Amino acid sequence: MNDHANKDALPEITEKATADAVLLADRAKAASRALGKASTDQKNAVLEAIARRISQSSSEILAANALDLEAGRAQSMKSAMLDRLRLDEQRIQGIVQALDAVKNLSDPVGEVTRSWTRPNGLSVSRVRIPLGVILMIYEARPNVTPDAAALCLKSGNAVILRGGKEALRSNLALGKAIRLGLADAGLPEDAVQLVDTPDRGLMLALLRQEEKIDLCIPRGGESLIRFVAANARVPVLKHYKGVCHVYLHGSADLKKAMAIAVNAKAQRPGVCNAAECLLVDRAAMNLLPPVAMSLVEAGVELRADPEALLQLCRHRVPAVPARPDDFGHEFLDKVIAIKTVGSLDEAMDHIARFGSMHTEAIVAEDKDAAERFAREVVASAVMVNASTRFNDGGELGLGAEIGISTTKLHAFGPMGLEELTAQKFIVRGNGQTRG
Amino acid sequence: MNDHANKDALPEITEKATADAVLLADRAKAASRALGKASTDQKNAVLEAIARRISQSSSEILAANALDLEAGRAQSMKSAMLDRLRLDEQRIQGIVQALDAVKNLSDPVGEVTRSWTRPNGLSVSRVRIPLGVILMIYEARPNVTPDAAALCLKSGNAVILRGGKEALRSNLALGKAIRLGLADAGLPEDAVQLVDTPDRGLMLALLRQEEKIDLCIPRGGESLIRFVAANARVPVLKHYKGVCHVYLHGSADLKKAMAIAVNAKAQRPGVCNAAECLLVDRAAMNLLPPVAMSLVEAGVELRADPEALLQLCRHRVPAVPARPDDFGHEFLDKVIAIKTVGSLDEAMDHIARFGSMHTEAIVAEDKDAAERFAREVVASAVMVNASTRFNDGGELGLGAEIGISTTKLHAFGPMGLEELTAQKFIVRGNGQTRG
Repeated sequence: MNDHANKDALPEITEKATADAVLLADRAKAASRALGKASTDQKNAVLEAIARRISQSSSEILAANALDLEAGRAQSMKSAMLDRLRLDEQRIQGIVQALDAVKNLSDPVGEVTRSWTRPNGLSVSRVRIPLGVILMIYEARPNVTPDAAALCLKSGNAVILRGGKEALRSNLALGKAIRLGLADAGLPEDAVQLVDTPDRGLMLALLRQEEKIDLCIPRGGESLIRFVAANARVPVLKHYKGVCHVYLHGSADLKKAMAIAVNAKAQRPGVCNAAECLLVDRAAMNLLPPVAMSLVEAGVELRADPEALLQLCRHRVPAVPARPDDFGHEFLDKVIAIKTVGSLDEAMDHIARFGSMHTEAIVAEDKDAAERFAREVVASAVMVNASTRFNDGGELGLGAEIGISTTKLHAFGPMGLEELTAQKFIVRGNGQTRG
Repeated sequence: MNDHANKDALPEITEKATADAVLLADRAKAASRALGKASTDQKNAVLEAIARRISQSSSEILAANALDLEAGRAQSMKSAMLDRLRLDEQRIQGIVQALDAVKNLSDPVGEVTRSWTRPNGLSVSRVRIPLGVILMIYEARPNVTPDAAALCLKSGNAVILRGGKEALRSNLALGKAIRLGLADAGLPEDAVQLVDTPDRGLMLALLRQEEKIDLCIPRGGESLIRFVAANARVPVLKHYKGVCHVYLHGSADLKKAMAIAVNAKAQRPGVCNAAECLLVDRAAMNLLPPVAMSLVEAGVELRADPEALLQLCRHRVPAVPARPDDFGHEFLDKVIAIKTVGSLDEAMDHIARFGSMHTEAIVAEDKDAAERFAREVVASAVMVNASTRFNDGGELGLGAEIGISTTKLHAFGPMGLEELTAQKFIVRGNGQTRG
């Protein structure tokens, strides 16, 4: 979705785009009422029916995907992007398994999260309800289409899916199977609608349907998310970059430090919960050479501040001087910045200034230091003696995730089914009035 | 704040306004770090110190308020607005008592809302943290200044307060006392900052500080809220109008129906949780004349659909025909629309179409009907045999409220201290890495 790069030139919203957006939103809203009332069994039956329809339509879906891939190759799409776009029999099976996994998650709708009685006898409860209508805007990754649909349906929400234009044919084929599944199970097809045009004016018109759309979740590159955030009137859950730190405290255990630093940086460097900076306490400076060497052995380039660089040179660990803008930078690659700090406070100051509130980790045996770090660092997940890579809905035990929020409102961190719900008050009385 | 009425003419954001907004936001963000770490005792000490400073400064505050009132009268401000603007010794005492009430609320920060252990031994908890920096934009009601400051401080948030320009002198005097109280208790004064100019360009510049401001809460008329919602890049918790219904089911008890209808409509008709429409089930048509007569006796004008009007005429209850736009209308006055419905489903359809998701009530002895209504109606509060007027933070037992949200994201209904927090994950391990 590089077409979002130019922030200044807003696409035109034609009358047709506005009319289409209103129609999509109205249909979604109507469907959401039926879905909000659906029982867990009905919603599970829908997920089963969708899985069946997707399995049955796999050749049709793969044929559509082949056309998308062909067009992508013709436009010299990068190989990483082609890989994300590509479906095959195995990936279709993965989609079917993911639908089954969502089916097995417990249904948050109707859960009474708390209840109490007032002195006047009123009984008050807070009860989870679906958010209503969700707009998903995402890149050319066709697997997001059924994944997002499943999470929205299970939590009782209608969804409008607007995927990257490069995956349009694949998405339409998947969408057709999803809607057939909805019909099979007797729920409104419009619970899942696909935007069938790459028109950005229509996307913009959708982002203005604040009366009918309850939430927009953009997933993709930073420019897409900034475009959505800057132009939406519907609430947006944003996920900006992940600039995650691993802090080696003076009390750090060497073995844990090595394992965590290497895992956080090198296990999958291109993702948002990978570490981008190692903070080394002066009191842990003796741990730096072996930790750094294991990073180098994992293929990581080290960019160190002068003090750390001196220590690395002394121990013949290859490293280069860090530039100022290496701190706070999301490399998304096998590169790590290394910064020396004089204390826990200095480490937390660095994180407050350069971190992105995504994931922050401390390696420390000193319980007080670890607990202060856990308590005071503001990030969606704070790790004590564990890899930053665990900040993930599946790893934390939430089941599948529909996104990771790095802003604090409504959801902070991985968004599972619960984060797709709101809570209403139900108040039961026997004729009480207010005095 | 009628200066927001013209949505099309955006105020100019001067360079100075942008610089001022950045400065306010930076200071607030720095203060929020100190405040986020403050203990409950420290925060309570601040609230005590603020109460003391406000008491001590009451003559200064009242003198400033007198100037605001004088200017208001000179500009022919309406009497209701003058009343909201006015402070006196008794109201100052009310402010001091409200500070004490917030002090006595339990501190949500640090609360572990849930914790569990993963198969790999990781211990995961969700812990409440402050949102960070809150921007309050409100009308010329000086009591909101200390109320909002107290709720933000107790929940560990820094706040930027932008009140109506007609109350600027009163707010500055209150703000001075609040900041003295912060200094007395050793917390940063910038935890509470007052915007000291009515410049709307500055307000707009603040609404664009999405990197530093975590939430904007607008309180006031619909045009103010729409202006904020349309122009903010920071997340906004909106409170639009309250179009609340009372539905008399066929099984309704007459006494309860009379008490609830009168209380919901007439106890305080100008507020958002007052009822605007009575839905009468055909099966409850015999209850309509006595219920309607008690409304008339409470001074309420009835605007009925043809079927209800016929029943009222037969029983000599004064009423006029409803116009189509009386349904879904927020009268904020002693006027109620009356609509006949054929069933529970028809009542819920009417509410889905005309309600504003604020508060909806059913009067019914039939448990199944009442529970279906409670489950299926989407509103921040659903009342069974109780007045709509109970949808209020104090009445529901949340303590003071900073606003009422009618959108579902983050908070739905009255926002107490908990709604001014987010939750982070804390993950404790012993060296775990991801495979």
